[in-house]
Amino acid sequence: METQTMQTTPSTQIVNVGGYSIGGPEFTVIAGPCSIESREQFLETAMGVKASGAHLLRGGIWKMRTSSKDFQGLGTSSFDMIKDVCKQTGMSLVSEVTDARQIEQIYDVVECFQVGSRNMHNYALLKELGMQKKPVLLKRGFAALITEWVKAAEYVTVGGNPNVILCERGIRTFETSTRNTLDLNAVAFAKKNTSLPVIVDPSHAVGIRALVPDLAYAAAAVGADGIIVEVHPRPAEALSDGMQALTLNDFKVMMNKLDRILDAIDRPLHTQLQSEGAVVYAN
Amino acid sequence: METQTMQTTPSTQIVNVGGYSIGGPEFTVIAGPCSIESREQFLETAMGVKASGAHLLRGGIWKMRTSSKDFQGLGTSSFDMIKDVCKQTGMSLVSEVTDARQIEQIYDVVECFQVGSRNMHNYALLKELGMQKKPVLLKRGFAALITEWVKAAEYVTVGGNPNVILCERGIRTFETSTRNTLDLNAVAFAKKNTSLPVIVDPSHAVGIRALVPDLAYAAAAVGADGIIVEVHPRPAEALSDGMQALTLNDFKVMMNKLDRILDAIDRPLHTQLQSEGAVVYAN
Amino acid sequence: METQTMQTTPSTQIVNVGGYSIGGPEFTVIAGPCSIESREQFLETAMGVKASGAHLLRGGIWKMRTSSKDFQGLGTSSFDMIKDVCKQTGMSLVSEVTDARQIEQIYDVVECFQVGSRNMHNYALLKELGMQKKPVLLKRGFAALITEWVKAAEYVTVGGNPNVILCERGIRTFETSTRNTLDLNAVAFAKKNTSLPVIVDPSHAVGIRALVPDLAYAAAAVGADGIIVEVHPRPAEALSDGMQALTLNDFKVMMNKLDRILDAIDRPLHTQLQSEGAVVYAN
Amino acid sequence: METQTMQTTPSTQIVNVGGYSIGGPEFTVIAGPCSIESREQFLETAMGVKASGAHLLRGGIWKMRTSSKDFQGLGTSSFDMIKDVCKQTGMSLVSEVTDARQIEQIYDVVECFQVGSRNMHNYALLKELGMQKKPVLLKRGFAALITEWVKAAEYVTVGGNPNVILCERGIRTFETSTRNTLDLNAVAFAKKNTSLPVIVDPSHAVGIRALVPDLAYAAAAVGADGIIVEVHPRPAEALSDGMQALTLNDFKVMMNKLDRILDAIDRPLHTQLQSEGAVVYAN
Repeated sequence: METQTMQTTPSTQIVNVGGYSIGGPEFTVIAGPCSIESREQFLETAMGVKASGAHLLRGGIWKMRTSSKDFQGLGTSSFDMIKDVCKQTGMSLVSEVTDARQIEQIYDVVECFQVGSRNMHNYALLKELGMQKKPVLLKRGFAALITEWVKAAEYVTVGGNPNVILCERGIRTFETSTRNTLDLNAVAFAKKNTSLPVIVDPSHAVGIRALVPDLAYAAAAVGADGIIVEVHPRPAEALSDGMQALTLNDFKVMMNKLDRILDAIDRPLHTQLQSEGAVVYAN
Repeated sequence: METQTMQTTPSTQIVNVGGYSIGGPEFTVIAGPCSIESREQFLETAMGVKASGAHLLRGGIWKMRTSSKDFQGLGTSSFDMIKDVCKQTGMSLVSEVTDARQIEQIYDVVECFQVGSRNMHNYALLKELGMQKKPVLLKRGFAALITEWVKAAEYVTVGGNPNVILCERGIRTFETSTRNTLDLNAVAFAKKNTSLPVIVDPSHAVGIRALVPDLAYAAAAVGADGIIVEVHPRPAEALSDGMQALTLNDFKVMMNKLDRILDAIDRPLHTQLQSEGAVVYAN
Repeated sequence: METQTMQTTPSTQIVNVGGYSIGGPEFTVIAGPCSIESREQFLETAMGVKASGAHLLRGGIWKMRTSSKDFQGLGTSSFDMIKDVCKQTGMSLVSEVTDARQIEQIYDVVECFQVGSRNMHNYALLKELGMQKKPVLLKRGFAALITEWVKAAEYVTVGGNPNVILCERGIRTFETSTRNTLDLNAVAFAKKNTSLPVIVDPSHAVGIRALVPDLAYAAAAVGADGIIVEVHPRPAEALSDGMQALTLNDFKVMMNKLDRILDAIDRPLHTQLQSEGAVVYAN
Repeated sequence: METQTMQTTPSTQIVNVGGYSIGGPEFTVIAGPCSIESREQFLETAMGVKASGAHLLRGGIWKMRTSSKDFQGLGTSSFDMIKDVCKQTGMSLVSEVTDARQIEQIYDVVECFQVGSRNMHNYALLKELGMQKKPVLLKRGFAALITEWVKAAEYVTVGGNPNVILCERGIRTFETSTRNTLDLNAVAFAKKNTSLPVIVDPSHAVGIRALVPDLAYAAAAVGADGIIVEVHPRPAEALSDGMQALTLNDFKVMMNKLDRILDAIDRPLHTQLQSEGAVVYAN
């Protein structure tokens, strides 16, 4: 039988997003709303998550919705507002592109392009991202094999962009009590068998607010390099995915416990950057 | 939208196995070989896992094997030897019954009856176990909905035996790089929505030795009440499931890191019982 | 690449049930209620399906129910009544055993032991059935690989009973609009790669009455050796699985179209046996 | 309980592709290679499938490949050749677009745009196709719920293009003996519950040449409006998916048996169009 070692292989590809190195010894927290809905909502969320220790912002501009009748995102009209909020808070944005033609439009709004689960197999999009200078957060297709996920990443890296972060966000299984099934086996496997950083999206993975923090803790313990989590000041009013959004207070409570677990495994949270021009507030 | 609280609901049903309460504030570790193969193998494993802090022994006597040509377990001929090893180490055994007719035979050999994943739907067996005084560790069927798992537990509890421990051991999905897909969503969900203790079997869930500890840490972080893990002194010689068995040293390393994570979440490992007649050895 | 032939391999193991050879050139139809509920219900169903051309009866005596609170079947008290109905109609019964201890009890009531999907991995039961003289209809576990299904059959055949009929009844997938996902790939695969007859249960596979006939036609076209289908005189009153039961008229309509498809592929329905003592009635 | 009728609802949306109405009483056969590899390969295949009764051609120009290192299709350089072959054989082409920017390029090469399984969720692409005049063959995502598939079709129809043909091509499940699991439940369900035509791709669904015809027969019997099937003159030399390609002779044998089954259910094959300029040859 095989002789496996117990040694963990750290990511050899460290990816820098907005001043934070992902895949190194520190743990990265990306937080924000599912969809960016308005200046007020986005700014309040950004300030709130920053106050609790988040490093980067998430927030959808173009949404992939199962039904054509659902809210499709604010689109290009929100760019100036988004840049204002990022500047005001000193935080960088990770946001999804759903079509290769959006890359140029959004280039100076985001620090990291997100490829959503439903686009993991959109090789035309991946090839374009392989020609960009900014990093790519590649979510696993909800029915993609680990090997397919890694090969999708290669569509980006062979194009010349080595800065890919893998993101496990739950897979589709027979279970229906939770939105998807978070596959932490895949996180452990990808950490051992690829050179790329791996983060976890517990929000989409479980889809139930009260369970999101527990799965974030599990993600940290299994060895993920970070998490990306949905937060909304008033989840009941969210235009998408309100069921799984943490409130700002939920997020704060989660960050405190996460911090203790990360300490126990010598994997500290990144220290927040002190950005010129960023608003300062008490925690 | 719903108003979920962030409060965790502790198990209201605490199950005592061999002097350890499962479902209370302490974390329980059950360890041992997949199959009990010989006195030497079982004793060496038992002494080794006890030295590293395990609380209870696991070990198969009748094995559920996909092929009728594979090793089917030592069966009744091993009972005296097993009782000797338990006495010598002061540890109690959790072991699987695969047929209702075995319950009476094995009654004084085990402290807890295990129902395997392939028998979760064996309602004839569950009904018999509902009439016993000893606790039942009920593994989730590898394709069972959480709701079916909970209803299977009711087959035992409605019969008069309230002492059921749920055990998540991985579900069958499309992914093939790992043996099964560990469903920690289900653990978080069951902890919040049932009154029963929930433990995790990371060994069957992932099936790859090098990844078992990472998933054990995740299980602790997500809020499980314990783990059941396969250990073999020489995995390459194991008659079943050698690929996923930890060596005694792997187990020791894992227990050290697990202990630190549990401390961080105020969920200490049980203190080992001092059993009269048990062998004492240095860690 | 491989060189596959287009030749179909007929079953080399022909299994005789109640005078009908399953796996040979003729197609076999097994029909009846999910559960045997009363003399009236069972007799009316039996006479009705016989009038439309069914060959064998199905009907549950002990039911595997997800909840312990659901109807569990009439059990042993119904044996005399069942024998009466079989005698009166000249038909033989295929019925499920859910526990090895039932085999002896039910031996002279059934002509074929059915092993349900949830018991495919119940190797204790399979081993007992391997020692019997009567044939075994082995349903595929709803999450069993084809290879596991074939190996489960071997638990019976290595015990000395070669008379196993495989039955595909739908697998559990992510799809929820239908009860299960009928896997006709598996039927085609098993026909080409095993020596055993293969039949299909369209009722459990789809779980929606209006779709059952279409899937029965597909089963015939793909090369199955027969079908087992649920019929109830008044599905709305059924104690189990009423949603998927055909009415007697649905069954009659289905048999007519099935007959035409089978003719087109030179796979005729068995001629019904003329049993002494059987009731004669007009169609 | 529900009162379902046994009546089938014929497609109310009949889609015309290259002179053949899909969704009406006749059955349509689309055949051709996985990838168009050369003039010789494409012409030989086209003539061969036409001789056996196929109505429309399939053939990939841009391929969605898991690995960036695999053959990606001939692309735009093949357009003139393809138009020649279509003209020479009097057949129209159904071919996949993998990026919205390809629609304009390929517009006069194809009579029907195919959306592949991995692009079913590519809503940017679907929206563009909603603005075209030519029909769209929408493959089901290999992990898409039936409801998601129907909603994906709405992305096209709400845009103003009502001509969508649904295509079931197998879903991803735990089974690995076959490439995917053909879900004929979904075909029966979609026929009863939507107004769109539904066809089946048995080639990708099973992935094993010897089993493709059996599943094509099942598709016809279940009530599909047509099939799309892969054929290659020399499968062993195919640049993609050779394992599942029928030879020209396999295809001929299949068409003969399919014809008999369709006759039995009063669902005849379309009569082939007599196109001016098309080559005439003996069968």
